[in-house]
Amino acid sequence: MLGTGFIADFYISALHGQRSRDRVIMAYSTTKERAKPFAEKHGIPHWTNDLHEAVNHPEVDIVCIGLRNDQHLEAAQAAAKAGKAVMCTKPLARNGREAWEMVKAVEHAGVFNGYLEDLVYTPKGLKAVESVRNGAIGRVLWAKSRETHPGPHSPWFWNIEKAGGGALVDLGCHCIEIARNFIGKNVRPVEVMCWADTQVKPIEAEDHAIGLVKYANGAIGQFEVSWAFRGGMDLRDEVMGTEGTIWINNFLRTGFEMFTAPGNSGYVAEKAESASGWLFPVGDETNDLGYNHMFTDMLNSMEANTSPLETFYDGYVVNEIMDAAYRSAKSKKWEPVKLEEWRGLPDDAVQVQKEVEFDENHWLLKEEILPDGSRKILLKEKTSGKLVQREFLS
Amino acid sequence: MLGTGFIADFYISALHGQRSRDRVIMAYSTTKERAKPFAEKHGIPHWTNDLHEAVNHPEVDIVCIGLRNDQHLEAAQAAAKAGKAVMCTKPLARNGREAWEMVKAVEHAGVFNGYLEDLVYTPKGLKAVESVRNGAIGRVLWAKSRETHPGPHSPWFWNIEKAGGGALVDLGCHCIEIARNFIGKNVRPVEVMCWADTQVKPIEAEDHAIGLVKYANGAIGQFEVSWAFRGGMDLRDEVMGTEGTIWINNFLRTGFEMFTAPGNSGYVAEKAESASGWLFPVGDETNDLGYNHMFTDMLNSMEANTSPLETFYDGYVVNEIMDAAYRSAKSKKWEPVKLEEWRGLPDDAVQVQKEVEFDENHWLLKEEILPDGSRKILLKEKTSGKLVQREFLS
Amino acid sequence: MLGTGFIADFYISALHGQRSRDRVIMAYSTTKERAKPFAEKHGIPHWTNDLHEAVNHPEVDIVCIGLRNDQHLEAAQAAAKAGKAVMCTKPLARNGREAWEMVKAVEHAGVFNGYLEDLVYTPKGLKAVESVRNGAIGRVLWAKSRETHPGPHSPWFWNIEKAGGGALVDLGCHCIEIARNFIGKNVRPVEVMCWADTQVKPIEAEDHAIGLVKYANGAIGQFEVSWAFRGGMDLRDEVMGTEGTIWINNFLRTGFEMFTAPGNSGYVAEKAESASGWLFPVGDETNDLGYNHMFTDMLNSMEANTSPLETFYDGYVVNEIMDAAYRSAKSKKWEPVKLEEWRGLPDDAVQVQKEVEFDENHWLLKEEILPDGSRKILLKEKTSGKLVQREFLS
Amino acid sequence: MLGTGFIADFYISALHGQRSRDRVIMAYSTTKERAKPFAEKHGIPHWTNDLHEAVNHPEVDIVCIGLRNDQHLEAAQAAAKAGKAVMCTKPLARNGREAWEMVKAVEHAGVFNGYLEDLVYTPKGLKAVESVRNGAIGRVLWAKSRETHPGPHSPWFWNIEKAGGGALVDLGCHCIEIARNFIGKNVRPVEVMCWADTQVKPIEAEDHAIGLVKYANGAIGQFEVSWAFRGGMDLRDEVMGTEGTIWINNFLRTGFEMFTAPGNSGYVAEKAESASGWLFPVGDETNDLGYNHMFTDMLNSMEANTSPLETFYDGYVVNEIMDAAYRSAKSKKWEPVKLEEWRGLPDDAVQVQKEVEFDENHWLLKEEILPDGSRKILLKEKTSGKLVQREFLS
Repeated sequence: MLGTGFIADFYISALHGQRSRDRVIMAYSTTKERAKPFAEKHGIPHWTNDLHEAVNHPEVDIVCIGLRNDQHLEAAQAAAKAGKAVMCTKPLARNGREAWEMVKAVEHAGVFNGYLEDLVYTPKGLKAVESVRNGAIGRVLWAKSRETHPGPHSPWFWNIEKAGGGALVDLGCHCIEIARNFIGKNVRPVEVMCWADTQVKPIEAEDHAIGLVKYANGAIGQFEVSWAFRGGMDLRDEVMGTEGTIWINNFLRTGFEMFTAPGNSGYVAEKAESASGWLFPVGDETNDLGYNHMFTDMLNSMEANTSPLETFYDGYVVNEIMDAAYRSAKSKKWEPVKLEEWRGLPDDAVQVQKEVEFDENHWLLKEEILPDGSRKILLKEKTSGKLVQREFLS
Repeated sequence: MLGTGFIADFYISALHGQRSRDRVIMAYSTTKERAKPFAEKHGIPHWTNDLHEAVNHPEVDIVCIGLRNDQHLEAAQAAAKAGKAVMCTKPLARNGREAWEMVKAVEHAGVFNGYLEDLVYTPKGLKAVESVRNGAIGRVLWAKSRETHPGPHSPWFWNIEKAGGGALVDLGCHCIEIARNFIGKNVRPVEVMCWADTQVKPIEAEDHAIGLVKYANGAIGQFEVSWAFRGGMDLRDEVMGTEGTIWINNFLRTGFEMFTAPGNSGYVAEKAESASGWLFPVGDETNDLGYNHMFTDMLNSMEANTSPLETFYDGYVVNEIMDAAYRSAKSKKWEPVKLEEWRGLPDDAVQVQKEVEFDENHWLLKEEILPDGSRKILLKEKTSGKLVQREFLS
Repeated sequence: MLGTGFIADFYISALHGQRSRDRVIMAYSTTKERAKPFAEKHGIPHWTNDLHEAVNHPEVDIVCIGLRNDQHLEAAQAAAKAGKAVMCTKPLARNGREAWEMVKAVEHAGVFNGYLEDLVYTPKGLKAVESVRNGAIGRVLWAKSRETHPGPHSPWFWNIEKAGGGALVDLGCHCIEIARNFIGKNVRPVEVMCWADTQVKPIEAEDHAIGLVKYANGAIGQFEVSWAFRGGMDLRDEVMGTEGTIWINNFLRTGFEMFTAPGNSGYVAEKAESASGWLFPVGDETNDLGYNHMFTDMLNSMEANTSPLETFYDGYVVNEIMDAAYRSAKSKKWEPVKLEEWRGLPDDAVQVQKEVEFDENHWLLKEEILPDGSRKILLKEKTSGKLVQREFLS
Repeated sequence: MLGTGFIADFYISALHGQRSRDRVIMAYSTTKERAKPFAEKHGIPHWTNDLHEAVNHPEVDIVCIGLRNDQHLEAAQAAAKAGKAVMCTKPLARNGREAWEMVKAVEHAGVFNGYLEDLVYTPKGLKAVESVRNGAIGRVLWAKSRETHPGPHSPWFWNIEKAGGGALVDLGCHCIEIARNFIGKNVRPVEVMCWADTQVKPIEAEDHAIGLVKYANGAIGQFEVSWAFRGGMDLRDEVMGTEGTIWINNFLRTGFEMFTAPGNSGYVAEKAESASGWLFPVGDETNDLGYNHMFTDMLNSMEANTSPLETFYDGYVVNEIMDAAYRSAKSKKWEPVKLEEWRGLPDDAVQVQKEVEFDENHWLLKEEILPDGSRKILLKEKTSGKLVQREFLS
């Protein structure tokens, strides 16, 4: 385990709790002062502040990067050089250029690589994506993901140099990849429009950003991220398809509600802002936020010698989309996503017919149940373009 | 009552139901075939297909325009010429130019004018705006309003010439004005970024649009509108403030849930798509969608010789914002809002200090409750820019 | 208006707000000190502390009893004697005996009488009952209504002599009548089982009670009431039918959610317990709690010389059910409901066949969708009683 | 694994999925026709229809009873005789007498015994109980648990002889034990009042039951169970405490909502009744319904030689409570719970003082925030019993 901060704690809780045969055997931090107590707290036998010692330890099968964003590249290169499997926390890097270096490093070394995008692995998310694949909501038109909370835990997040950006890099990476999973990861992200501003916090980076990502098949991915939200952590996805809708709430409203006048003396939930009044805890955060399913996929894939659901290449695509978003926030126009290499389908393979056919001569415009219970259908004649209305008694 | 369609039905239900002393005494439609049965159905004593006869009828105190978008201008001019008070459905016109003509007509004639933006008058909306005014959520950073459903009732909506646009003109007008009410109607809308596409329907106009409106104080209004949504009518507002959050759901999730295997033989709710399985009716649509409070404000204001909450000028501002949105959807960049006249505060009067002061020497970055119950505060030194972390035991 | 307390305020807000032609012209309280300021606050021209002067005032068309429970009988008798229409707040009386005296007084005098059971008139409730009548959920099996909050406003409620009981008399009257409306008001309530206890409050009467009312057709009405609930006012109904389900939430979860760090300086909602953190206001309390629809029904019925939805007789039935509930709480067994007169259907007219027929030879036991999508049906042979399972591929 | 039905599938999914070092090595069913394919499906190396061969297999460390209710006793006795650890599905037995035999068998043999009450182990439930222990909601007054759905999967459930009862035995066992966990398992259940009826299904046993369990400290446990519910599986808990409230929804409303016009071709959720329209799946059923946490507790406890959260004795107490419920449904009065042995606290150790002290001379009756923001407190003088009202400006 490279890193000893908040996310490393979460990772270890999942790793030790889920597949009970896996153990973290090495803890690395840039300072000995942090590595040692972390190792003791989690019962990790070895610790060091020497990166190369950490990754080359003979008992280490897989290197887990849970470091600051600016330290990912060096760590990944070290792991690749050591010939070790590697998995890296989100975002993969500070920008597309660094991310591409990481992809090249692991692929050149031929080592297993996994991108730890936990929110793609939430149980609700996995089930929803499967439903979409099964056709439950038809063709996906729009996939919005929102993550907002009152700001990150560790001070380095607030440093634009170390983090590579603000709320967009921290949270947008989740939202962008969630939308990609709904729309289809083999559909090319074409261009991005993004607004980003520093509305509240005394920082250089943005604390609020909203963006649209246009895909080659016309679908839109939307992200809404902020470090200025009040009330806890808002984690929601919404998907519109031609035949259906999906709404997922992963945090503040999951069927667990508590009113407490004296206050809950223990831990409530990540980012909770109050400890009395109405609170909305989450049942099993480690599982519900995707950590269990993510590590199970990672370790099973490594053992089976297959690719996990999320690889370094996915992390790279996300970084490039974020780079385009930052360019757009500056230029105030849509900016193209520049990929070194596109590994999905060619654009002409994902084109869709937008109209829904009613019969040989008509497109379907709309079907409706009227107040009196009868059914009304609006059609458009294909040749004349004329609208035709038909009513059916119930 | 000018117009005899769906919205005219709704208006009359509110007008006759609420202040029981008001009566619609004249029904106008462009065709006699529609005017007569409409008048009979609602017990309206007079009907005509002559616009000028309608507005000049001596018993008419106020003209209510419930016509197609392309007929608003002529009707408003006729009413103004007749010296009659006038209220007009949304959107005020097909575009800013027509809307400005309407403003000039009524103001020149000196007649009462009201803009029938019902969704600004929902009971939840009115209460929420009042809370915002009282400081409950601090300074408003972002106000999003979403209205999506499977498409409008009457065929003319689908005709870009008659409607002036698609889902944006039909639904975006609501969302834009709702956001203006939260952010403050005296804060100037500066520029707009909008994506609009025809993703499903066989029409010329857009069936899906998403846009951001930037205000002079840095706040963002967001609209999400679509005629391609599945599952009913989605009508939600979300507001982020520096000190709080507001979430309003006006339709699909309001605390009324029904599972019916055989199906509900009667009317379920506007735009409901299914009549069996899980349904989500609304208690009192006329009241909950704002019609009652809107007409009460309109008629009370007319009698008291004051301005209602929503005037033709408000409708005009909305039309100009939508015009900028259409320009942006084409140019793919932010477009300025061009107002003939700005009647709110000057931009320099609405500037805000974004940072929150902790003490003389520090800005507040973040305050947090940790898992162990202790309180952590992140500060930034004003002069050095250095981050400082302080913990307080609970 | 007889009474100047909390409920009288609510009533006047509805009466003056809804049908704008109605005015309260007389305010009565037992003390002049309360009558005068109340009259001034609401612009009521006359006030008195003489009950007979109040009801006999020539401009009074209808007497509205908003007094303490122990004052209802005398007031109703005075109004009846004066030949005035009368409507009375809930509960109708402290017990069945007093309620029956009130029924006899108004019926003997032949005056209009209405029982102000507002929660039967909530927009959601009215729509739900209509759906039940239309067959949307089949035969009603169980109707539960729950009203709990941290306790009433005025001190007299806590006095068992003046109120006639505790939470059961105060809140149970609502729940019982709501269930009657779902099950059918012409189905006889047969017997009652009730638990009641004083769990928290330093009072003689019960602060928590739960009861079951069995109806002649086998349906069960359930009430859950408490003055010891924390978190606001919980106002929910649940109905199970053979073909469907209804869930209504009238207060704490109605699609209006607010997080406020500084606190909402104004009024939040009736019985709200906190003014900061997550709050759940109601959009339009007067309308959503049924006051508008109730008074519209009352006044329209009075003018049309018909019976309102809720009459004194309904109030009487509720009082007798509550009397049986108190007897049961003491005897610890089911107690019969003793009605002086039953005006609904005879018991043998409401008997139902419980089994659902699948075909001539089988009863339907269950229909189910299996994990693999196939449909499974469980049947019971009518003659042999044997279970038969049939599967259908999807 | 004894048993090859629906619950055995669920158990194996949890056992194989969670602690990845555990394997089921033996499958037993009363018929070879079921044992063999079940073993093959799950990759279980051995199978048999001989109970004693199954429990005595040398590789078997722990016997898991997933059989019909009427087979639990014999299986437990066999496992005990074989000296094997044993865990048994819910309910422990058909009645208290059988359950007590099972307790005696395992305790006499001195083998580990666990009661597989999964719903006590839901992540939300575990967290909620922990909050209650920490004082978040004060003293528990009432704990209600509700489980209703359209009826069980396997035919034997519908046979009163094999199951020992109907919906009460099948579902009530969950609800009763959930309430015990909230109220405190060392507080004695004293008496039970229960209504049970066969309202819809063509069976001998009850398809709907509601009951109250009174505990020695005055707290009330409530269960609501039915096989006649429509709309899916309703799984909710509600707890009232003197200082707070807990609402848990484990199934139909957990933040995952889907509208699908064509229908979801795959599996939706246990007991889902429809496959199109609005659906409410659950993210991770095995985890969210408690199976993972349950088996982790069982196996960890067995390895650590400690007692799991739920033992055979707990199952026995639940059976005795259900026996009292059946007696009450017949006698129509409260019936005492008859325990062969009470292992919790004596009744006089759990008595509580119900009143809340405000100061030396007053009890607190109520504290309230008024519409104008001021705080009102109602007190009762301890000696005189007089009510005193105090207001505090905000």
